[in-house]
Amino acid sequence: MPGPLHGVRVLDFTRFQQGPFATALLADMGAEVVKVEPRIDGEWGRQSERDAETGFSAYFESYNRGKRSITLDIRLPDGQKVVRALVPGFDVVVENFRPGFMARVGLDYESLRPLNERLIYAQASAFGSKGPMSGLGGFDHVAQAVSGLMVEQAGGPGHDPSPALPGAADQISASFLAMGIASALFARATTGVGQKLEVSLLGSMMAFQGRQVTRYFVTGKQGRARFRRSPLYSHYRGADGWGVAIAAQRQESWAPLCRALGDPALEHDPRFAGPWERNDHADELEARLEAIFAARTVGEWLERLIAEDVPCGRVNDYSALKDDGELAAQLRENRYLVEVEHSGQGRITTNGTPVTFSGTPTQELRAAPELGQDTEAVLLAAGYDWPAIEHLKDVGAI
Amino acid sequence: MPGPLHGVRVLDFTRFQQGPFATALLADMGAEVVKVEPRIDGEWGRQSERDAETGFSAYFESYNRGKRSITLDIRLPDGQKVVRALVPGFDVVVENFRPGFMARVGLDYESLRPLNERLIYAQASAFGSKGPMSGLGGFDHVAQAVSGLMVEQAGGPGHDPSPALPGAADQISASFLAMGIASALFARATTGVGQKLEVSLLGSMMAFQGRQVTRYFVTGKQGRARFRRSPLYSHYRGADGWGVAIAAQRQESWAPLCRALGDPALEHDPRFAGPWERNDHADELEARLEAIFAARTVGEWLERLIAEDVPCGRVNDYSALKDDGELAAQLRENRYLVEVEHSGQGRITTNGTPVTFSGTPTQELRAAPELGQDTEAVLLAAGYDWPAIEHLKDVGAI
Repeated sequence: MPGPLHGVRVLDFTRFQQGPFATALLADMGAEVVKVEPRIDGEWGRQSERDAETGFSAYFESYNRGKRSITLDIRLPDGQKVVRALVPGFDVVVENFRPGFMARVGLDYESLRPLNERLIYAQASAFGSKGPMSGLGGFDHVAQAVSGLMVEQAGGPGHDPSPALPGAADQISASFLAMGIASALFARATTGVGQKLEVSLLGSMMAFQGRQVTRYFVTGKQGRARFRRSPLYSHYRGADGWGVAIAAQRQESWAPLCRALGDPALEHDPRFAGPWERNDHADELEARLEAIFAARTVGEWLERLIAEDVPCGRVNDYSALKDDGELAAQLRENRYLVEVEHSGQGRITTNGTPVTFSGTPTQELRAAPELGQDTEAVLLAAGYDWPAIEHLKDVGAI
Repeated sequence: MPGPLHGVRVLDFTRFQQGPFATALLADMGAEVVKVEPRIDGEWGRQSERDAETGFSAYFESYNRGKRSITLDIRLPDGQKVVRALVPGFDVVVENFRPGFMARVGLDYESLRPLNERLIYAQASAFGSKGPMSGLGGFDHVAQAVSGLMVEQAGGPGHDPSPALPGAADQISASFLAMGIASALFARATTGVGQKLEVSLLGSMMAFQGRQVTRYFVTGKQGRARFRRSPLYSHYRGADGWGVAIAAQRQESWAPLCRALGDPALEHDPRFAGPWERNDHADELEARLEAIFAARTVGEWLERLIAEDVPCGRVNDYSALKDDGELAAQLRENRYLVEVEHSGQGRITTNGTPVTFSGTPTQELRAAPELGQDTEAVLLAAGYDWPAIEHLKDVGAI
């Protein structure tokens, strides 16, 4: 069965990561996504982070699986004409050019809307389309910096900035973009009319850091001036190295934790009796836990903690996703990791769709497309005949 | 005008962050979210991270703004009966109890579906509802550990684990949950039937790390064994400290960067002529850039870089969100930061909605609700009369 967005057609002009991951999520959920790429070399992501030995780009694969691909030079009038011919047959247009570019080529929402009143036009940018910074270029790393994330994650002012995973701001922005498009599709189903929606890296970083930012504005506190990671919500080395993560911050977990640690004296130590006491003696408690955890292996600790139902887990590197049998089974059975057929690499393992649907299960995932593999099919379906397609090739538009 | 989810009614049993942030996003987009809370002390988030001086919980405020609140003890048969009476009037049920709990109290999808065939039931969990780990407890910190994020972000195996922002896995999972609910609402608008959908922290972390995980499975490479941060996509200290983030990784940015740096010799240095050369001499390039950036203030560098249209930004702490006039204007004009009226704190500044909609603009945001402020109104609207409400109070169900 098709996914929840079955029947939705998406004309996708996005590049890099923010837009492509959003439309990959739409494709996962059953939408038909037609990726529009520059005629020469294709979208930038095709060349990004290619493996030196295999030439495989995990970057392009992850963010473009399940899409179709057409080539089209939208800087040429003939290319722009093709877009205008396609738009009546699509539900959604998505782009993440710098604000202003689509207007310059006559393909912004105001230009396209008269061709399709039901069109949903989604614009993603670095800083948002309004305001004094709207015209600036920006990428993930810049948005992590400007939004305060690098400093907050490092512990606040005075610490060396610590960026999140490369692409973190892109990924979060992409998930909000997909959410916005799905919500606009729902609104269109009830009202009949399309609209324009917008996300940006900066705005997404504000929502992502909602509680930290709100706390700063209300209390003036940020970084370590506002928090100290609780020793009960942390991670420890075992006798065989990293590590055990525990989340025993709720009072109901305290006694089970002490039992799992094999240290009944800890439970009744008045310095650690309740959350306020533990907060006041956090350094002592942390030192005590470090010493205790160092005495047994990670595997032993996990067994003991799970037996007492203390939320916990191993601090893994990616090899565990493959080699830890229980975790590998968990990832497979929930389809968080799946296999797809890749033209160059054979069957590869990749991330699944983060949402599963009982009534409209998401489709079998397909690999990312070859550049321009669907150009002719998409144009023929839109009413172009072969001579018209040949003309577009002759002028270099496709 | 109301948001794109206007008219959608959400019965929200979620606790902590993963679920509440998702339903706060739905409320932002115009849904009516009725938060169901334990009768005593309310949902756990109310007590979480309260500021020592003001008692203000940014945690609760950010993740619960715009919702209504009712108290209900769903462990009591009378409380369960209330849920069954409410479900026919709602479109969506959301919960993030440990898998199995809702079945034990007779409120899982299979039990509720006969009451409302159009119901969308969204379940969020730590590890997913299937597989050997489904019954384990888990929180954000555990999911960051188990999924490999802490190690990958630190640089790979052999580095001390480096967690992302507290709540990062919750936030990302929440955005996928909201996306899934909006998509299921769209599917229901076209098919007429509801369904169950699921997200988890673990599955969301796989999608969040899609390219890193895919790369690991195809090439065996992870952490710093697979990448070295490009000196052109990084951040540097200026003469007055941190810092300048640049994203000049595209070839077209190389000459403008060198001009902005005032170092024309750099542009034509054969060691740095193209991406492969710069990669082979990354350490030398980085050292050169560190020395150059150290010679001028951050403000001077930003001015020079922006003049050459090199994507860049300041490495900010949160004070810039308030004190940097241009950034503050950007955040305000795009409504990434907004003001809401808070009962205890007066007008407070908080994160806005990450998506803006032209046709169905999101509502003015309201603060988080007082515990149980809407219990009677919601029950009356569902057909309860005052004696029935009094009875529920007498038995401790509300």
